Amino acid sequence: MAIKKGRYAFEFEKKIYINGYGNIAGAKEQQGPLGKLFDQIEPDLYCGKKTMEQAEVYLQQTALQNALKRAGVKREELDLVGAGDLLNQCISSAYSFRDSNVPYIGLYGACSTMALSTLIAALSLEAGVSKKAAAFTSSHFGTAERQYRFPLEYGGQRPPAAQHTVTASGAVILGDQKSAIRLHGGAFGSIQDPGVTDQNNMGGAMAPAALKLILDYLRETKTKPSDYDLILTGDLGAIGAEVVVDLAQKGGVDLHRNYQDCGLLIYDRQKQDMHAGGSGCGCSAAVLTAYVLPQMEQGKLKNVLFLSTGALMSPLSIMQGESIPSIAHLIHLKGEKA
Amino acid sequence: MAIKKGRYAFEFEKKIYINGYGNIAGAKEQQGPLGKLFDQIEPDLYCGKKTMEQAEVYLQQTALQNALKRAGVKREELDLVGAGDLLNQCISSAYSFRDSNVPYIGLYGACSTMALSTLIAALSLEAGVSKKAAAFTSSHFGTAERQYRFPLEYGGQRPPAAQHTVTASGAVILGDQKSAIRLHGGAFGSIQDPGVTDQNNMGGAMAPAALKLILDYLRETKTKPSDYDLILTGDLGAIGAEVVVDLAQKGGVDLHRNYQDCGLLIYDRQKQDMHAGGSGCGCSAAVLTAYVLPQMEQGKLKNVLFLSTGALMSPLSIMQGESIPSIAHLIHLKGEKA
Repeated sequence: MAIKKGRYAFEFEKKIYINGYGNIAGAKEQQGPLGKLFDQIEPDLYCGKKTMEQAEVYLQQTALQNALKRAGVKREELDLVGAGDLLNQCISSAYSFRDSNVPYIGLYGACSTMALSTLIAALSLEAGVSKKAAAFTSSHFGTAERQYRFPLEYGGQRPPAAQHTVTASGAVILGDQKSAIRLHGGAFGSIQDPGVTDQNNMGGAMAPAALKLILDYLRETKTKPSDYDLILTGDLGAIGAEVVVDLAQKGGVDLHRNYQDCGLLIYDRQKQDMHAGGSGCGCSAAVLTAYVLPQMEQGKLKNVLFLSTGALMSPLSIMQGESIPSIAHLIHLKGEKA
Repeated sequence: MAIKKGRYAFEFEKKIYINGYGNIAGAKEQQGPLGKLFDQIEPDLYCGKKTMEQAEVYLQQTALQNALKRAGVKREELDLVGAGDLLNQCISSAYSFRDSNVPYIGLYGACSTMALSTLIAALSLEAGVSKKAAAFTSSHFGTAERQYRFPLEYGGQRPPAAQHTVTASGAVILGDQKSAIRLHGGAFGSIQDPGVTDQNNMGGAMAPAALKLILDYLRETKTKPSDYDLILTGDLGAIGAEVVVDLAQKGGVDLHRNYQDCGLLIYDRQKQDMHAGGSGCGCSAAVLTAYVLPQMEQGKLKNVLFLSTGALMSPLSIMQGESIPSIAHLIHLKGEKA
């Protein structure tokens, strides 16, 4: 039974390990600073499929396959999967798993999905409902632009605060088989709504949810930023990340030294003209599985707080003048000695 | 730690109780056979709000309030909520909980959400992450028609296989405080896709997922239909429910006597001109909380299998010629002696 540290933070009682992880990314991600770290690159936005939505399904299936391969587990051996994505009715996830008999938990956490799905998979292990569970998500520049903004053909101009949806998918396999990375604990976040109505400033909208959960977790676990090798948020981008560091500072918490944001790591914003950075469920999923977990496996990172961050508005709610409610979820990863 | 009975079925080790339940429904639901059973009726599709989306948020908040009241629990005393709905990006659920500090798990299971959210809330109790958790969902005829089909003003004609989206919300509060109803066990379903491409026949598309999970659960728990007072599916409607009973019969399982479908219970199809019956997340949520749980409390029902059933397509995937993947989730409720 998990040990509650407070309203948000908990530690798992069971030893829950990352038994495998995998990913795939697109051309823009290949050109970024992490380009060489991905398992696989698919330069074509269509991935050779008829529609970009089918391409996103392919990304998910491939990332999961890569994770299963590392774990030495077959897809049908999974006891449970937790998945979700950005598309209306989460079709990427549902269609990517429609040919399987594995129990499926559909999630919607917008860009918080990687941490959310990992926590749900871990919860199923802790509760004894599964022994091997997968968590995965994806995003795709073309499908997201069409749904949330404009068709690509329209060539819409983007303001500086805008972020670029990452084309990528990432997956993890959790299990009880000892490995180099253990899921020590985590926290489900609550919805925060600072009143931002500009959907081109999602980093600003999401920053309070991320900051709150970081501070809650540190307080409840009686730890400080310097106890961690890395504190990583999902896709706050340049504006949101600055807000987090500044507001933490004002609250007496120094995040300058070991805080990073996946949306800033994945692109070279200047060279690639990526405005405020990367976003999308695939952003934190790809950075977790290509950058964080390999470094933990190599012993370079030993104690990591990983947050994914999601903006929970819809194009309709924005048109109706609503502000953007946001959420963050947190997983706490620890390196294990061999 | 939950006791796994097989690939799908599990029993909770902890005593997990329904500590409260609540609902609200609309005018059409009031006119139906269960009309007098709802906690509250809101005859105006706008619920006095500016938009129908805001009305759906109001339905969720009200159903949850009614459940909290029965449980004697304040909203801020909840350790966790699991919620989702049919609207793009699940905005009804996110906006209904944006002013709270309660950890929030966003789900997407289409009309399977009531069983899914209840299982997730129960999982959090079993894993020790929460002691009081809420699960809720909703649907709204106007918001669903606009998003999935046509604006109401268009007056589109509906074929006989079509179902009517229920305007309602239902909520349950789970906790460890002994009550008359215990959540004995459950099962997360897998995605089934029989190849149906007609979005006006969602009952037919969902029937195989529901049937499979019922048969899996009976087999794994070594029980038969006559062991239960009621086996209830979410919103298969006239066509889907008939498919389930017929195919079960062919497999040697007799569901004739104690099987029902929420989509058939909620409307008088002939008098109300409701075609194949009711549908939407709110359908099974309202029937569970207005019809099933009160009867369990009164001792009239003692052993119930409750499934919600979801069709996981999107309007876009249908336009792209894809078939409709479907899912069911199951909760097993038992009456407790006082």
